[in-house]
Amino acid sequence: MKSQCTVEFLPHNRSVEVDVGETLLRAALKAGVHINASCGGEGVCGKCRVILEAGSVDGGLSERLSDEERNLGYRLACLAVVSGDVTLRVPVESAMDRSVITLQATPRRTASIRQMDFDCLKEEGLFIPPVAKLHLRLTPPDANNNMPDVTRLIEHLKQDHGEHRLELTLPVIRKLPAILREADFEVTATVVRPVRDIGRNLILNVQPGDRTAHNYAIAVDIGTTTIYGQLIDLASGSCLAEAGDFNGQISYGEDVISRIMYAEKPAGLAKMQEVVVATINAVLDKIISTASVDREDISTVTLSGNTTMSQLFLGIEPRYIRRAPYVPAASFYPPFTAADIGLTINSHAIALVYPQVSSFVGGDIVAGVMGSGMYRQEELTLFLDIGTNAELVVGNRDWLACTACSAGPAFEGGGIEFGMRAAKGAIEDFSIDPVTFEPMIFTIGDVRARGICGSGLITMAAMLFEMGVINNRGKFQRDLPTPRIRERDGVWEYVVVWQKESQLDRDIVLTEPDLDNLIRAKGAIYSGCMTLLAEVGLSMDMVERIILAGGFGSYIDLEKAMTIGLLPEIDPARVTYIGNGSLMGARMSSLTNRIRHDVVAVTSKMTNFELSETPSYMDKYIAAMFLPHTEIEKFPRLKARIEARGRAMSNGVDAKSEA
Amino acid sequence: MKSQCTVEFLPHNRSVEVDVGETLLRAALKAGVHINASCGGEGVCGKCRVILEAGSVDGGLSERLSDEERNLGYRLACLAVVSGDVTLRVPVESAMDRSVITLQATPRRTASIRQMDFDCLKEEGLFIPPVAKLHLRLTPPDANNNMPDVTRLIEHLKQDHGEHRLELTLPVIRKLPAILREADFEVTATVVRPVRDIGRNLILNVQPGDRTAHNYAIAVDIGTTTIYGQLIDLASGSCLAEAGDFNGQISYGEDVISRIMYAEKPAGLAKMQEVVVATINAVLDKIISTASVDREDISTVTLSGNTTMSQLFLGIEPRYIRRAPYVPAASFYPPFTAADIGLTINSHAIALVYPQVSSFVGGDIVAGVMGSGMYRQEELTLFLDIGTNAELVVGNRDWLACTACSAGPAFEGGGIEFGMRAAKGAIEDFSIDPVTFEPMIFTIGDVRARGICGSGLITMAAMLFEMGVINNRGKFQRDLPTPRIRERDGVWEYVVVWQKESQLDRDIVLTEPDLDNLIRAKGAIYSGCMTLLAEVGLSMDMVERIILAGGFGSYIDLEKAMTIGLLPEIDPARVTYIGNGSLMGARMSSLTNRIRHDVVAVTSKMTNFELSETPSYMDKYIAAMFLPHTEIEKFPRLKARIEARGRAMSNGVDAKSEA
Repeated sequence: MKSQCTVEFLPHNRSVEVDVGETLLRAALKAGVHINASCGGEGVCGKCRVILEAGSVDGGLSERLSDEERNLGYRLACLAVVSGDVTLRVPVESAMDRSVITLQATPRRTASIRQMDFDCLKEEGLFIPPVAKLHLRLTPPDANNNMPDVTRLIEHLKQDHGEHRLELTLPVIRKLPAILREADFEVTATVVRPVRDIGRNLILNVQPGDRTAHNYAIAVDIGTTTIYGQLIDLASGSCLAEAGDFNGQISYGEDVISRIMYAEKPAGLAKMQEVVVATINAVLDKIISTASVDREDISTVTLSGNTTMSQLFLGIEPRYIRRAPYVPAASFYPPFTAADIGLTINSHAIALVYPQVSSFVGGDIVAGVMGSGMYRQEELTLFLDIGTNAELVVGNRDWLACTACSAGPAFEGGGIEFGMRAAKGAIEDFSIDPVTFEPMIFTIGDVRARGICGSGLITMAAMLFEMGVINNRGKFQRDLPTPRIRERDGVWEYVVVWQKESQLDRDIVLTEPDLDNLIRAKGAIYSGCMTLLAEVGLSMDMVERIILAGGFGSYIDLEKAMTIGLLPEIDPARVTYIGNGSLMGARMSSLTNRIRHDVVAVTSKMTNFELSETPSYMDKYIAAMFLPHTEIEKFPRLKARIEARGRAMSNGVDAKSEA
Repeated sequence: MKSQCTVEFLPHNRSVEVDVGETLLRAALKAGVHINASCGGEGVCGKCRVILEAGSVDGGLSERLSDEERNLGYRLACLAVVSGDVTLRVPVESAMDRSVITLQATPRRTASIRQMDFDCLKEEGLFIPPVAKLHLRLTPPDANNNMPDVTRLIEHLKQDHGEHRLELTLPVIRKLPAILREADFEVTATVVRPVRDIGRNLILNVQPGDRTAHNYAIAVDIGTTTIYGQLIDLASGSCLAEAGDFNGQISYGEDVISRIMYAEKPAGLAKMQEVVVATINAVLDKIISTASVDREDISTVTLSGNTTMSQLFLGIEPRYIRRAPYVPAASFYPPFTAADIGLTINSHAIALVYPQVSSFVGGDIVAGVMGSGMYRQEELTLFLDIGTNAELVVGNRDWLACTACSAGPAFEGGGIEFGMRAAKGAIEDFSIDPVTFEPMIFTIGDVRARGICGSGLITMAAMLFEMGVINNRGKFQRDLPTPRIRERDGVWEYVVVWQKESQLDRDIVLTEPDLDNLIRAKGAIYSGCMTLLAEVGLSMDMVERIILAGGFGSYIDLEKAMTIGLLPEIDPARVTYIGNGSLMGARMSSLTNRIRHDVVAVTSKMTNFELSETPSYMDKYIAAMFLPHTEIEKFPRLKARIEARGRAMSNGVDAKSEA
């Protein structure tokens, strides 16, 4: 049985490949075909009728369809799922509808997901294992050969494994005599490779017997909200276990500023450190027990987090991070023994914390840059991690510039009347009928809507703008023939979901103030990128690749994000999403010394700009306070679509008047 | 006033330079002139009469001299002290006495004391300061220059001081933000230099203001019996304070074996470590308070001790040191933070422990080799540290071989009927009248004798042998006309001090079993050296320099030690005494990275021989069980003296019979 099937939509003549089991409604979304739908896929609104013309589907029958309709092949698109190739017709009510049908939404297109992994490293020739486990059968000492135990170990490492420039720790010396004799001189040495060419190989541990098959590392992302950990098998490169948990510091403040303020209290810093270490330890416990590995076999832990999270974890006073001129303590932290800071892995594992660029471009971003491989690419790349604060990096293998801007909480639902985080019931995607202005909505979990999350907000703004429902300043056309656009208490809004089709006791609306906030947020980010590029003598239209990182990026409909001017308009195929870049970078550092080596030079060359200190930023910000921008020429595809829509609407009006 | 005066002895016609205030008796000793004296200098035996012929002395008058004798210039040599140039006549009783007078003892000649110091290092071009303190006035951050604090520090170190390849510790990062701002960005950075050429400069500490004038190090000798510490000013190279204390482990056992046995008990190792650390801390407290330095200004502590002491200090199981095949845990120990092992200097000082060669040639010996500079010399040198165990190193700048042998406790007074450690009342020097066999004794503290210490024992054996009182197997001539040689309970002995002239209630004697023990001790050492040399294809007569280390070496009368065959016969001017070589090496390592660098190669090239595993050792040992050795040809000066004595005795007998 095929896992992918073709779904053809008529009269649009659009086809799309979708997975078996996908709903017809989501297939339509993917194809850029609008079908009225407002109940989130629960089958209660009964609006999303389609007619089966060829092939068959599973389900899609409902009491909202009459027997006659069923026999004619009507199905509810939100309830019917693909089981084979199928041709569907979307009922249209007028010649005008038909004439504009081909102009409907750009197909939904999220970024391709690119996770650097072990195989990528090997293919690129970048795999330089940071930790080796070497099995040894030592010649036991006798009267004629009674060199010290450590000397014997090192001699065998030289002779049997060609090792040189070895050094070791006091704890290894302490345990070696007993282990050698308990294990009849058959042991496994854990050797940590130097990051620098001229460095030494560190014998970090010695274990009885042959433990070469057990060689593990841990990667940790210290997020302000959530802490993720992965247990990595250094032999295969695979992730054996992953777990996450809320950062225990949340109890002391939601955001970095409140954490810093807490740390400024007496004993506050120690408390912040204790709490985050406890969360990390809980995550470690989960992944270690899930993977059922012996803690003794874990040699390194690589952590990354933003500057505040890193300083709190390391017990470094964060006071000056939040005070002008925003000075962090350090870029680079030396490696240290994980146990010294309270991590309960074992007594010997070495911890590395990703370096910071500035108070607002932290190790999480550096990790993303490293993990994504952006720093090795020739193309001019824009790296974006969008949240309440957006961190931006532009550059390529020759140079990198970065900054951070406050986007505000709009993308996380803040400042939006029905905004919410990406959770069950959040409208995550949207389309609008250009004639009737009826919506097609998709919610996370396919349930009735209860709010709008960031990606839904972007899509709504893009669709409303492209369909001429709002102008380039985010204001509604006041005279459109639909009850969904209305003025309430002096504020114009669009009713996305009527109360009766929602989970709420009132209509879910999108207001002009919501759109203002969105435009401010996207304008801050876009102008941040422009400013960065301008500072290095380049412009946004020169961006060849975009990398999205962070929880938000995976849901963004790229064309929509370009339509509102959140992203510059480039081929969506050149946009990749790397997910949790911080965690990926930490994992990559666990897997290869090449990344550990490169990160020093990369971090040093990341030129940081404080936007508040860059006079041109405000001008660029104001210019970005339009949809998509004052200069629509920078968005040629969008411009062409808007012009085509204008022509089609005229034709539609003509067709209607002819009818 | 002159501080040195000439004392001339008649009829010997020997002159000697001595300090003002020296007794005439000690001047005689130094000149190799025998004067009967047996009360230790208390003036009670009245034997040590000399006649003032020119010049004058202070004191020397006693009720044991009649008025007439006083007027004739008689003085008691033990009570009279030198105050100017003087000529003395020693009364001799017979022509025979006169004829053999010139053959009396070789002049007392102890090793010249050579302490390597700061100036030596500078002269030799070896002074590479291991720690620099650098004063900085940083540009404070502002909006246009908000690099991280650490980056700022490093940039200034580069620009203002030409520093490169810098790294720093987490504690420095932790304290830096607050210190910079408290001190208005004027700070002093403590930079530890790398030992290897390719190493990194470690920023170990940062202090507010200008602390460049305060740069200290500590050297510690961890002796089995005594722990010594020195506080070193790295700017001047001078020792600001020194202190010693008994190693607290003594309560758990006198020698290394009993300490190891204690450490094998449950929790015994932790106890041994705790106790020695406590003693070291007490010593540190003393020197730090004596020198009145701020603990914060101390950057390094260098420790050296024998293998067992080092392992106990570091908490390394010493079990295998005392069990065949006598395997120590390690040669080299990595540097570590002193506080981590419980040393209460400060939180950042780095500790270095001298490397070991084998279970019985430890860091104290390596430190002696390093501190003495032996490893940089061209001459074939014999390094000797004599105690219950004697450690021997032979070689030069190209090669080094070492071993340890059990000399037994004879040199420390053990196994000798009236043996005692070097303490007040111990006979430390001795001469014998070749005709009357009356002794001249010297005690530590110039009090009546209560025993014989190691150096006294060597001198007695040498004098008795050279004067023909004992033969080359250490047996007394049975027929000499003196009550001092007698048989008691089947054992032959020489009465060194009659009971009434001693502190004891019986005669102090030297017995044949005492001499047997001494011969075994010196034979073990000499044959150890011979074996070592033979193993590398050389022989004892090729030794060009001797270095003596340890508490014992300063008292040894070199000619006497050569007479009994403890040392090979070389020019005494080529013998140096370095005192506590362990402490000196630790101090040298504190003062220059050159020593820290060289010690790695030197320790690695010190070839260790276990005498028990060297078949030729037993043959050489047996050959060394004579005075001085079966092959007297190896001791040509002694041979010549013995032959001359034989001729003189014949002449003396002739003279006597003519008289």
